[in-house]
Amino acid sequence: SPPSFPITATLFPGDGIGPEIAESVKKVLTTADVPIEWEEHFVGHTVDPRTQSFLTWESLESVRRNKVGLKGPMATPIGKGHRSLNLTLRKELGLYANVRPCYSLPGYKTRYDDVNLVTIRENTEGEYSGLEHQVVRGVVESLKIITRQASLRVAEYAFLYAKTHGRKRVSAIHKANIMRKTDGLFLECCREVAKKYPEIVYEEVIIDNCCMMLVKNPALFDVLVMPNLYGDIISDLCAGLVGGLGLTPSCNIGEHGIALAEAVHGSAPDIAGMNMANPTALLLSAVMMLKHLKLTDKADMIHAAIIKTIADGKYRTADLGGSSSTTDFTKAICGNLNF
Amino acid sequence: SPPSFPITATLFPGDGIGPEIAESVKKVLTTADVPIEWEEHFVGHTVDPRTQSFLTWESLESVRRNKVGLKGPMATPIGKGHRSLNLTLRKELGLYANVRPCYSLPGYKTRYDDVNLVTIRENTEGEYSGLEHQVVRGVVESLKIITRQASLRVAEYAFLYAKTHGRKRVSAIHKANIMRKTDGLFLECCREVAKKYPEIVYEEVIIDNCCMMLVKNPALFDVLVMPNLYGDIISDLCAGLVGGLGLTPSCNIGEHGIALAEAVHGSAPDIAGMNMANPTALLLSAVMMLKHLKLTDKADMIHAAIIKTIADGKYRTADLGGSSSTTDFTKAICGNLNF
Ligand SMILES: CC(C)[C@H](C(=O)O)[C@@H](O)C(=O)O
Ligand SMILES: CC(C)[C@H](C(=O)O)[C@@H](O)C(=O)O
Repeated sequence: SPPSFPITATLFPGDGIGPEIAESVKKVLTTADVPIEWEEHFVGHTVDPRTQSFLTWESLESVRRNKVGLKGPMATPIGKGHRSLNLTLRKELGLYANVRPCYSLPGYKTRYDDVNLVTIRENTEGEYSGLEHQVVRGVVESLKIITRQASLRVAEYAFLYAKTHGRKRVSAIHKANIMRKTDGLFLECCREVAKKYPEIVYEEVIIDNCCMMLVKNPALFDVLVMPNLYGDIISDLCAGLVGGLGLTPSCNIGEHGIALAEAVHGSAPDIAGMNMANPTALLLSAVMMLKHLKLTDKADMIHAAIIKTIADGKYRTADLGGSSSTTDFTKAICGNLNF
Repeated sequence: SPPSFPITATLFPGDGIGPEIAESVKKVLTTADVPIEWEEHFVGHTVDPRTQSFLTWESLESVRRNKVGLKGPMATPIGKGHRSLNLTLRKELGLYANVRPCYSLPGYKTRYDDVNLVTIRENTEGEYSGLEHQVVRGVVESLKIITRQASLRVAEYAFLYAKTHGRKRVSAIHKANIMRKTDGLFLECCREVAKKYPEIVYEEVIIDNCCMMLVKNPALFDVLVMPNLYGDIISDLCAGLVGGLGLTPSCNIGEHGIALAEAVHGSAPDIAGMNMANPTALLLSAVMMLKHLKLTDKADMIHAAIIKTIADGKYRTADLGGSSSTTDFTKAICGNLNF
């Protein structure tokens, strides 16, 4: 059932084109009469002039309190010693699963017209541990960490997602033939969870073979769950199949029920402020956020308007081969909202 | 200049379909009058009945002595404690670079018709160190090792390859924004070598972005060089673009001038012995071996016959949608040899 109104959600417009595409989202959601109040926070690669901080305590508290938010692209602050803001958010908010539905957009032609899958990426550990050091001069090592706790958590989420979204199959992606212990533990956890979902087909696919199958026949896949780096790689590969990161949404699932939807493309500093950016990925991410909030009718209506606008082909931003401005494209979407 | 004749080369037919496709290679090379004498060794996932060994000292010595060989698919021996034979060969022979040219085959249609690139994979270290352990129950780690020596060696090979093969660009693939020290060292080495080749364009591409670009527009790439696991993933992805591992050759470059050409597909036990296997990958790998031996005319003649046979479409094995036997396909190739 839809929640009691109004809902407060955190908004991090982010860097570069972030503020423009965030404007687009606000415009579309307002026009669609979505009962959301945004709590906007400046988080980015330059310090907030008001707070002298890259990332304030208040920004994090806002997400923790609201339990729901939307995030634009963030560049990493310049200079050594600065961790990526994206990673910091994942860590601070315990964002353990990155969910990216990836489907062929009707009306936007690529080499593939039959993609309809969801990648679910473990988002906190693995190759992203940050643990690296030089052993002797010319020899460096980095640690990949796989834990039972994080693997079970993301596996649980993947199967639950499959079940609640009417998906039929979960593929665990791995390289356990080489990394027998680490990826082996990941698979062990997936198998354990799979047993609780006999109605869902479970399979294991080696990552190199998975990438080959994805480019040959992506229709073979449904839900894919995997450790951090494989998720990073495969989710971008899949986005490429349907047109790129400008068209694919994502949502991060965190501890204590947090959901932070996110456009995962870059901040495109070269076109920032030029009213040229494509807001589609952030808009579709906002749609994921609305679904999470059970604002299903609103979500569906906005989703349909985005798809229709792209399919019509009259208003398209430069990255999709058109010449529309961000604001004109946004207006076209608003015009296609079907109340 | 072509070498003095005859040349002795080692042949490891391998497991499953290995012996059948190796037969095909011998037939084609004999028909083409290639002055090669094979020294055949049994290496595979069951013990050699004659030696009671999976991998004999003589097999390794044969490659070391001949400095050139051809290898079919090898499955890993069953049971714990057995390392993959593929990995053992890489280690024992110091096979430091795996080279995979990948191009659209005229006449074999896929979603892509403009692929023409070469992946060069560091083949000895990185994520394949085999160093893994459990820290405490439920927490396992694996070590990725990057060394200056191995990185320089593969980078040197990649640039030399680019130069001697008329290639214009080398892209180093990495995730140094996350693995700053390990992938950072790899990039440092690539940059150092790049300086010696001012005529070759050098660029660095993050692996996730690389995979997205590859599926959107593979024509952007020329020579790609990368650490072990990225090479494993990207070479299979690229093979998928042009039809799969059954159609793509590879050659391993090792210490002391060793070259071991290799079909990297599996041993396909389900169709072993049924005269159904596609020998193309092993044949094209043999062609790479001949080029390495400077038997360029023979190599080109055989290459042209393979391409023509596939393009004609009359004789194709089951994996390519045809119903030809391995032997009929092989005969067709022999018939297309243009002396
Ligand atoms: C920007 C980078 C740190 C990040 C990652 O590697 O996770 C990005 O590629 C992503 O997928 O969100
Ligand atoms: C079989 C396996 C160990 C091997 C690898 O991971 O290197 C294979 O995928 C390859 O690419 O040769």
